Amino acid sequence: MSRAEHSLLSARAYLSRVAEPPAPALVGFVAEHGAERAANAVRAGRVPTEVMKEVGARRTVRREEEDLQTAQARGLRLLVPEHDQWPRERFESCEQAMASGIANVAAPLALWIRGSPDLLTATDSAVSIVGSRAASGYGEQLAAEFAHDLVGRGFSVISGAAYGIDGAAHRGALAANGITLAVLACGLDMDYPAGHSNLLRAIVAGAGTVVSEYPPGTPPARHRFLVRNRLIAALSAGTVVVEAGRRSGARNTAGLAGALGRVVMAAPGPATSALSVGCHELLRDGAALLVTTMAEIAEAVGPAGTNLLTPIEPTARETDRLNEEELRVFESLDTRRGASAEEISMRSGIELGQVRAILPLLELGGLTMRGECGWTRRNGAPR
Amino acid sequence: MSRAEHSLLSARAYLSRVAEPPAPALVGFVAEHGAERAANAVRAGRVPTEVMKEVGARRTVRREEEDLQTAQARGLRLLVPEHDQWPRERFESCEQAMASGIANVAAPLALWIRGSPDLLTATDSAVSIVGSRAASGYGEQLAAEFAHDLVGRGFSVISGAAYGIDGAAHRGALAANGITLAVLACGLDMDYPAGHSNLLRAIVAGAGTVVSEYPPGTPPARHRFLVRNRLIAALSAGTVVVEAGRRSGARNTAGLAGALGRVVMAAPGPATSALSVGCHELLRDGAALLVTTMAEIAEAVGPAGTNLLTPIEPTARETDRLNEEELRVFESLDTRRGASAEEISMRSGIELGQVRAILPLLELGGLTMRGECGWTRRNGAPR
Repeated sequence: MSRAEHSLLSARAYLSRVAEPPAPALVGFVAEHGAERAANAVRAGRVPTEVMKEVGARRTVRREEEDLQTAQARGLRLLVPEHDQWPRERFESCEQAMASGIANVAAPLALWIRGSPDLLTATDSAVSIVGSRAASGYGEQLAAEFAHDLVGRGFSVISGAAYGIDGAAHRGALAANGITLAVLACGLDMDYPAGHSNLLRAIVAGAGTVVSEYPPGTPPARHRFLVRNRLIAALSAGTVVVEAGRRSGARNTAGLAGALGRVVMAAPGPATSALSVGCHELLRDGAALLVTTMAEIAEAVGPAGTNLLTPIEPTARETDRLNEEELRVFESLDTRRGASAEEISMRSGIELGQVRAILPLLELGGLTMRGECGWTRRNGAPR
Repeated sequence: MSRAEHSLLSARAYLSRVAEPPAPALVGFVAEHGAERAANAVRAGRVPTEVMKEVGARRTVRREEEDLQTAQARGLRLLVPEHDQWPRERFESCEQAMASGIANVAAPLALWIRGSPDLLTATDSAVSIVGSRAASGYGEQLAAEFAHDLVGRGFSVISGAAYGIDGAAHRGALAANGITLAVLACGLDMDYPAGHSNLLRAIVAGAGTVVSEYPPGTPPARHRFLVRNRLIAALSAGTVVVEAGRRSGARNTAGLAGALGRVVMAAPGPATSALSVGCHELLRDGAALLVTTMAEIAEAVGPAGTNLLTPIEPTARETDRLNEEELRVFESLDTRRGASAEEISMRSGIELGQVRAILPLLELGGLTMRGECGWTRRNGAPR
């Protein structure tokens, strides 16, 4: 690593620890002055009041060298906005949403990552799949299926690392050898949740990445999950909520995705399932598009005009081609007992002349037969 | 029965058999000339061409007296538009839809009924519940629950008489001693479907009614189910589709309900269920409102401002009252290991002065404790 590169990483490592995200004032200050000059100004306490509010508590903490060493020792890397692989475009919507005051969704100052460093490719066309920790078998199966099928179509998958829907989404993507991104709400060395160590290892061992804006050693906390959700929303083109209770972090992610101009989708579930109440509320409010298949998701998030659904033709019946009068004549026929045109006219309520014209047409179409005792419906003709 | 009344019923009975519904030209002709004069004109063949097209095949059939006798012998009645109990207002939307050319939804010329003759009360505030014959246990349970809860709220229920959702809706209404209406696509003496004889008897024995525009002896036919659906839609204030496959008559009813200006609703189901595909398509197309409970249905179909949903408050947590900074301070505390204000400032990233102000506030709220070794989260405080 060159001295310049090290100096940059060191500044960003310092900045990533000095303020609790999201830190909009600091992000703006860094954008204006560059990471190294901004870091020096923070260390020296020569920053505007708004920035000082964000950094005042921790600005004397100098752990950046230790953090970078810890990272190296544990196979982590620090990806910074100055890198080519930084998903710059993805975070532009954060700036826009901040500028218009919609939501506090400041971009991260840096991302600690483990696994593939190519976040640019991973987030080029990504769908986040989020939902309840306490998911049902139905929800987990659906999340896994969506993820599996989406990576098969060239999308990558993004989620948190919680039990339930998050884990199922990653497993589905891994099963299809796809790229999947887990965004954590704690330091990458925290092994949280403990039961997902193997899953996170599998993501890294595959083509995936585990990501966090929190420096090593940062424990998970409730507000950090909510703050983390903006990264899940921002890094993906659309967010699918698969099972969410009335009070679910997934709905927070959906709201942030909406604020960031992303496609918000929700899967339906049984009307009677408390685990789908959050999804159904999003749908009732018109805040999400109902999706049931990968194809519907792909159509919604893909660039306009791509991934269009192939309309599924209802199973065709031979009688589908018939007009109303022809159908009424056909329906008036029995398969066994023959009937005269007069009888059929009476049964169907269609004038005799028209019946006499329709019957031979139906015969040509293989739907009726003329026998000694009159007209019958052909055996094997559809009901 | 007076001679005048008999003469009216006789004319309407004749008209109800002479044309296959819907018969818009005949309906218009009858509205213009009155039932008896119109019937005489049809018998004599002195009608406009459009009317002749509808009546030409059957106008020589004179079975009205026989039909009325059969009806009396079997406990049926003929309800006609001239009666007080005729749901006039409900059918006004049919005329409007016909006039604007939206759909061929001509009102019926008469209704053969068994059970309570008071269709006016029964359709004053009614919800139709429709769906697949081949319903799942989930769908049947949901339909029965909706119906049961709706009649408890003073609504009546309307459906067809098919197996599956139709039957479940009636059973749910009957279980709560409510008014339920079964609209058939065949003569009331046809006992169709055979397996629902007891159900139809129970509807009649309760406060319900079995209804058909088809005179006695008319067999069911596919086009009659579709034609019948307009009556289900017109007689109710709103239609709920509970489980419908891609190709389901229930979607036809939903479309007609929309054309008639009624509220169209659909229940969600598992994304993976073929039996909910029709519901999900209605919801994706924005053609139906997603409903999961009776309260949501009642709010949607009730007159504006009535039956409003009571917003369900998410389960409150003690920490819900905290602002962002207070929550970050609270989350930085451990239940066992005490910490100083300085430590907490560092962990939370919140300036020391603010932390010193927040901690005593949290203590007053019963969330934190000050001990010999510093501040801790109070035992039993919510996570």
